Amino acid sequence: MMRAGPSQEEIRRHNLGVLLRHVHLGGPTSRAELTSRMGVNRSTIMALTADLTAAGLVREELPKETGRAGRPSLVVRPESARVYVLAFDVGVDRVVAARVGLGGVILDRRDAPRERGPFDLEALTAQLAGFAHQMLRDTARDAVCVGAAAAIAGGVRAADGVVKYGPNLGAYDVPFGEELARRLDIGLPVAVGNDANLGALAEHTRGVGVGCNDLIYLHGDVGIGGGVIVGGQLLSGHAGYGGEVGHMVVNPGGRLCGCGSRGCLEAEVGERTVLEAAGRAGGGRVGRDAIRDVVEAADRGDVVAQRALQRVGDWLGIGVANLVNIFNPEMVIFGGMLRDIFLGSAAQVRSRIATAALSGSREGLRLRTSALGDDATLTGAAELAFAGVLADPLEALARVNSN
Amino acid sequence: MMRAGPSQEEIRRHNLGVLLRHVHLGGPTSRAELTSRMGVNRSTIMALTADLTAAGLVREELPKETGRAGRPSLVVRPESARVYVLAFDVGVDRVVAARVGLGGVILDRRDAPRERGPFDLEALTAQLAGFAHQMLRDTARDAVCVGAAAAIAGGVRAADGVVKYGPNLGAYDVPFGEELARRLDIGLPVAVGNDANLGALAEHTRGVGVGCNDLIYLHGDVGIGGGVIVGGQLLSGHAGYGGEVGHMVVNPGGRLCGCGSRGCLEAEVGERTVLEAAGRAGGGRVGRDAIRDVVEAADRGDVVAQRALQRVGDWLGIGVANLVNIFNPEMVIFGGMLRDIFLGSAAQVRSRIATAALSGSREGLRLRTSALGDDATLTGAAELAFAGVLADPLEALARVNSN
Repeated sequence: MMRAGPSQEEIRRHNLGVLLRHVHLGGPTSRAELTSRMGVNRSTIMALTADLTAAGLVREELPKETGRAGRPSLVVRPESARVYVLAFDVGVDRVVAARVGLGGVILDRRDAPRERGPFDLEALTAQLAGFAHQMLRDTARDAVCVGAAAAIAGGVRAADGVVKYGPNLGAYDVPFGEELARRLDIGLPVAVGNDANLGALAEHTRGVGVGCNDLIYLHGDVGIGGGVIVGGQLLSGHAGYGGEVGHMVVNPGGRLCGCGSRGCLEAEVGERTVLEAAGRAGGGRVGRDAIRDVVEAADRGDVVAQRALQRVGDWLGIGVANLVNIFNPEMVIFGGMLRDIFLGSAAQVRSRIATAALSGSREGLRLRTSALGDDATLTGAAELAFAGVLADPLEALARVNSN
Repeated sequence: MMRAGPSQEEIRRHNLGVLLRHVHLGGPTSRAELTSRMGVNRSTIMALTADLTAAGLVREELPKETGRAGRPSLVVRPESARVYVLAFDVGVDRVVAARVGLGGVILDRRDAPRERGPFDLEALTAQLAGFAHQMLRDTARDAVCVGAAAAIAGGVRAADGVVKYGPNLGAYDVPFGEELARRLDIGLPVAVGNDANLGALAEHTRGVGVGCNDLIYLHGDVGIGGGVIVGGQLLSGHAGYGGEVGHMVVNPGGRLCGCGSRGCLEAEVGERTVLEAAGRAGGGRVGRDAIRDVVEAADRGDVVAQRALQRVGDWLGIGVANLVNIFNPEMVIFGGMLRDIFLGSAAQVRSRIATAALSGSREGLRLRTSALGDDATLTGAAELAFAGVLADPLEALARVNSN
């Protein structure tokens, strides 16, 4: 915490990461633009770009016709087809594997529905690894995989990536990352993160929350998860479980929650409650389509569906108001099935916030739906997988190449 | 956010701040110890110490007898008597001004009770400035004031230090810092912070939370405030109002709160509710002594007081459980009147946390009372006032000396 400043070599490595992050997040960028954005001189940018080019992470090209006179500044592009990560997303009803290129391009993907029921670690990791192996067979020989990560609907222990608590998946104390890495067998560990945390990271870096350093992402996938960006950083908490806002009690003595408590936000706003309140529980459709049906029915004037959304919107609004008081965020983003629930109950949510959030804390607050939609959590997993190469590009490549 | 690494000169200035912070927080420290803690070589420490000595911020001395053979390493001490800040604390029932020396030594202080009633900006700032001027008259001529800051029981807008919202002081949209600086008239601005936020900072840097990077400080002073340290940094939120946990709704439809909402943590656990529940409202004693009376009565077997604390402990426990799920903190600290309330209701609080907080999120959680007691918020104000000189010692001194 109170270490001295970095050495020249540490600064160079840091700068390589900063430059790579610029083109990873911003896409092809001219040297002139990088010089100005990074606040270093032109020769430093040239040296950094040369290092990254030699490592095969970026390439330089003449820009397309600019229409301006004079010699154009070379454009630095991420080597999206050559440098990639494997990203996985385990939701309650769907599993996804993707090959994502530097720059955030989804190069290839496989997905499959997931049966609700007990958590089967062997079958799940075999399926995901199978998807990955299929995609790897179609990958050019000179392409290099620089990381792997998975988003999962559960609380993940930061120290070892164990899924400590995922009631909606039936997962408790599951060494998911370790087992997936073993089955992948490509010499890389698999980082694991809570789906809502990674959704927050994704919306912050590539979605509706770009440029917004204090935001809350609420993710609905049967239950309710949360991810919080505080001062530009993902809130992880002491052991990695930070952001479990779905288990904030909003209605003491209310509905029984899967966690054993009563009246949690998840119990009052989760899928089961919405479907029950709308008279659609038991035997019928479940999942996002079922939630969308309720919202569409309310739009068409179905009074039962309207009342269900009002009730749920009240609790969602109280939950959001609490978070607004606690975090004073600039933006709250609704993702997963909460996207639909919010769209169907926005008036209720706003009204509760107006009553229960302090005026200062809600001043300038923006309520938004996820820009990345169903890919938010997968995109966050890809960003987590890229974290190593962005932090220290040459060191990360050296590690990968030594496998 | 994505700037390049620092220059050599920036690193030197940064390192001067790091070294000064070490002796400010850790007290007299040997050169050898600083070398090891900062991870730089001995000649760098010598150069940094020489600069800080020349600036009058530290001095070097031979240590007392060590009993070890060989030449002892010189000890670097903060110039506590020579370099100081002015710190102020405005609570509901008490105002304090203090002169605090580098190293956190309270060199001098003045306090006075405050009448409950409307907020009188003129009278309050005149009183505080008067205290400061008295103390300055007794200060050595060569001493230098490097900052001034105040803690206040209200929400403070980060941009300009205006107290946006302080219902328990009757303060709304008050330019408190600006007015206090005008009356002080010593050529320095007065930084202003929410009392609970500064209490969190104080407990994190000098109190029970030292070494703990994820903690929540709950401050009771008629109402309930909160300050949250996330990853070692104070959570400020988008506009500075972060941490208003007292207005988290824990009991929808519950007691009316001063903020206009119902069932806020502050409404269910605040002073008025405790005294009412204990049958001691209306005309009797108020303030911390009154709260202590309730806790002592409960200890002596007063059933009404015991039931009051049980009821309040239930709501406090639900509030803390919510915060544990949201933040996954390592420690929750109870300060101000909440210190007494927690001590009188700890079993209730723990029981609610056990029920309503996820097992992962509460694993390893420590519940503690404030180590700095009634000086927590004042100490935080002093740390806020020292922030400039610790960030860039020479630049801050140059600014002060040019006044």
